[in-house]
Amino acid sequence: MSQAATRMTQPDWHPDTARAAIAAAAAAAAAKPAAMRAAVAHLETSKIQQVFEAGFGVDNLLPLWVGESDVNTPDFICRAAYESLRAGEARYTHKRGIPELRHAIKTYTDGLYGLDLDVERISVTQSGMHGIMMCMQAFVEAGDNVVTISPVWPNIVAAAEIMGGEVRQVPMHLEDGLFRLDLDRLFDACDENTKVLFFCSPGNPTAWVMPDDQRLAIRDFCRQRGIWVIADEVYHRLVYDRPVAPSILPDIEPEDRVINLHSFSKTWAMTGWRLGWLVHPPEMGETFGKLLEFSNSGCQAFLQRAATTAITEGEPFVQQMVEYCRVGRDIVSQHLNSMPRVRLAQPTAAFYAFFAVDGMTDSLGFALDVLHKTGVGMAPGAAFGAGGEGFLRICFAKSPEMLAEAMDRLRPVLS
Amino acid sequence: MSQAATRMTQPDWHPDTARAAIAAAAAAAAAKPAAMRAAVAHLETSKIQQVFEAGFGVDNLLPLWVGESDVNTPDFICRAAYESLRAGEARYTHKRGIPELRHAIKTYTDGLYGLDLDVERISVTQSGMHGIMMCMQAFVEAGDNVVTISPVWPNIVAAAEIMGGEVRQVPMHLEDGLFRLDLDRLFDACDENTKVLFFCSPGNPTAWVMPDDQRLAIRDFCRQRGIWVIADEVYHRLVYDRPVAPSILPDIEPEDRVINLHSFSKTWAMTGWRLGWLVHPPEMGETFGKLLEFSNSGCQAFLQRAATTAITEGEPFVQQMVEYCRVGRDIVSQHLNSMPRVRLAQPTAAFYAFFAVDGMTDSLGFALDVLHKTGVGMAPGAAFGAGGEGFLRICFAKSPEMLAEAMDRLRPVLS
Repeated sequence: MSQAATRMTQPDWHPDTARAAIAAAAAAAAAKPAAMRAAVAHLETSKIQQVFEAGFGVDNLLPLWVGESDVNTPDFICRAAYESLRAGEARYTHKRGIPELRHAIKTYTDGLYGLDLDVERISVTQSGMHGIMMCMQAFVEAGDNVVTISPVWPNIVAAAEIMGGEVRQVPMHLEDGLFRLDLDRLFDACDENTKVLFFCSPGNPTAWVMPDDQRLAIRDFCRQRGIWVIADEVYHRLVYDRPVAPSILPDIEPEDRVINLHSFSKTWAMTGWRLGWLVHPPEMGETFGKLLEFSNSGCQAFLQRAATTAITEGEPFVQQMVEYCRVGRDIVSQHLNSMPRVRLAQPTAAFYAFFAVDGMTDSLGFALDVLHKTGVGMAPGAAFGAGGEGFLRICFAKSPEMLAEAMDRLRPVLS
Repeated sequence: MSQAATRMTQPDWHPDTARAAIAAAAAAAAAKPAAMRAAVAHLETSKIQQVFEAGFGVDNLLPLWVGESDVNTPDFICRAAYESLRAGEARYTHKRGIPELRHAIKTYTDGLYGLDLDVERISVTQSGMHGIMMCMQAFVEAGDNVVTISPVWPNIVAAAEIMGGEVRQVPMHLEDGLFRLDLDRLFDACDENTKVLFFCSPGNPTAWVMPDDQRLAIRDFCRQRGIWVIADEVYHRLVYDRPVAPSILPDIEPEDRVINLHSFSKTWAMTGWRLGWLVHPPEMGETFGKLLEFSNSGCQAFLQRAATTAITEGEPFVQQMVEYCRVGRDIVSQHLNSMPRVRLAQPTAAFYAFFAVDGMTDSLGFALDVLHKTGVGMAPGAAFGAGGEGFLRICFAKSPEMLAEAMDRLRPVLS
């Protein structure tokens, strides 16, 4: 029934009545509170996600946009989860992680860096993302700010914004084939409302490894100011010029305001398992216990059993994974370096090539166009905040065949 | 080395120097920002958790404090998870849930209540708790308040407080063997800063089922004020006087500000799996997608496969579970009703007996004392906020043998 017809069936309809009704409805709408917080209404959908969704239905898709390998989780890890399930370990459990896993993480970390970590400093999380969100819950509220080195994973920014915080991004610059950070700019961005300084090394998306002197300077600056450092080290094992990436852990005292962020996703091909861990000051254990209780009430014991198996028996797999990524890295960098429009900092860690394309000013539009022309899925640099526009990111933790095919398809559009 | 000895080896030590150093340290400590937000520093450890921890090392423990059964997750559900893992479904997946599970939830819900739900209204969460936390993130910030019917699960209060909100609890009263809610008091507790009205029916800890007229009155009141209703229905299947508990879903329009909260934990004996779902207005789908992305980045696809199996093939198991709990309910209520100091509202749903003990004014102290004397673990009523003191909660989703033994041990202390 048309609107006009509806009106005619209402005997008391009259222009004045209608105007009064519209005014009343408008007043009611104005009086009704907003459906949600402005901070949440303004959250942006990630530009990676936008390209990803444009890829549904694309033929012969080569998906290099997301940060995960095409290697399956090894079966010895999967079996450990099932055996634990069969043993009935599917009940509520320790909020901060089963003791076996926390001890296994201690032993693993001690072995990597020559430490003797207090187990009280380790809390198991439902992914690296969950660890970040709990940190923002603990440290950030309206009026506070978080300073990050960028280009940066957009989820860091969103987590701080959900808590009402402002995010200040200090961009690195690609210069003579290397990403470079200006520490003075970083420290100038901090003020008395800065609660967190976040960095990721080895970096996503840049594959940048923070120099030792900068890491120590950040530690000293934040120690003096009482600013929390979140050191995201989820790519610590994916490194091609040394056995393990430099960590902030050997540099700090237990009571320093430092959160060391980790994930099972990248090292053990467990992206879909959603498990990670934090190393934090011992006195933060109780707080993270509560934040775990009030977010997921503790991670699945049977998945934690599998993670324990991964970290204690997975070393041969990790070596294979590093070699797999090294081969991918070599294929991708050799090809990209031969394309005239491309500038690439040779990745010595992580599993990303983050490269500048001369003349490209709209990386989202470019990535969408290339996706439709070639079927190659790339993440637009603009997704990674300040300093990201003009770049594209591809993940090279893929088979040599897929990477070679992707490079062949990209050559015409990047030359 | 003693402090005195240390001092003597420092040639420049002098009382004035020491006083100056102490003053400087105090000034530095005062200048240093607080380690964390006041709202998080003030979070209370749950009193259930306090009794639980006191239970480590107790001989012959009968643990009736936590809300979970002693029935293992059925193997056909566990196997579905392992088969999915072996098929390689351990990668990043749909943020709001795999399509198979969202459709299975739609079919299940449609069947229970005679609806035709839009799948767009369904989002899969990493537990009921995770669903609650995302609601608080979406709706609540400093200056806002959340009104709840109490006694209430303490985690609801904590989630609102983490977001900076104030929680107003409106207690029910046990009268003539029934819990009763005064709607006028509930509505009087709401003001222009009320963003959420939370209730749980069937209730934890009370096992209370909200009368139909009160549910409709709450719907109308909140619809008019633009207040979000969170209707926690995780105990919807554990009901002993009808096939399914009354739900708010058939009463509402899709666009009403209502979140219907669910969990796989109780119905399918999957407490340790950490999976649940929300039914929400269709236009909230994008928001929950973002909040999922920025909290756990989507739940494990292989666990969601198992949940799909549970909800589509688990109906015979659910019937067994209801019968198991009904037997437990009968044992517990028969015994408790014969104990002179006990007053119990006969539970017609959920799996809790929440009973008053005459003369008990400190339920935490009493529960700790009984734990040490008898080995029976109970949750103190004070854990559940306003109106909870003077009560104890036990979970009766346990074997008849364990429950009978627990009742025998409790009789002397409750008589």
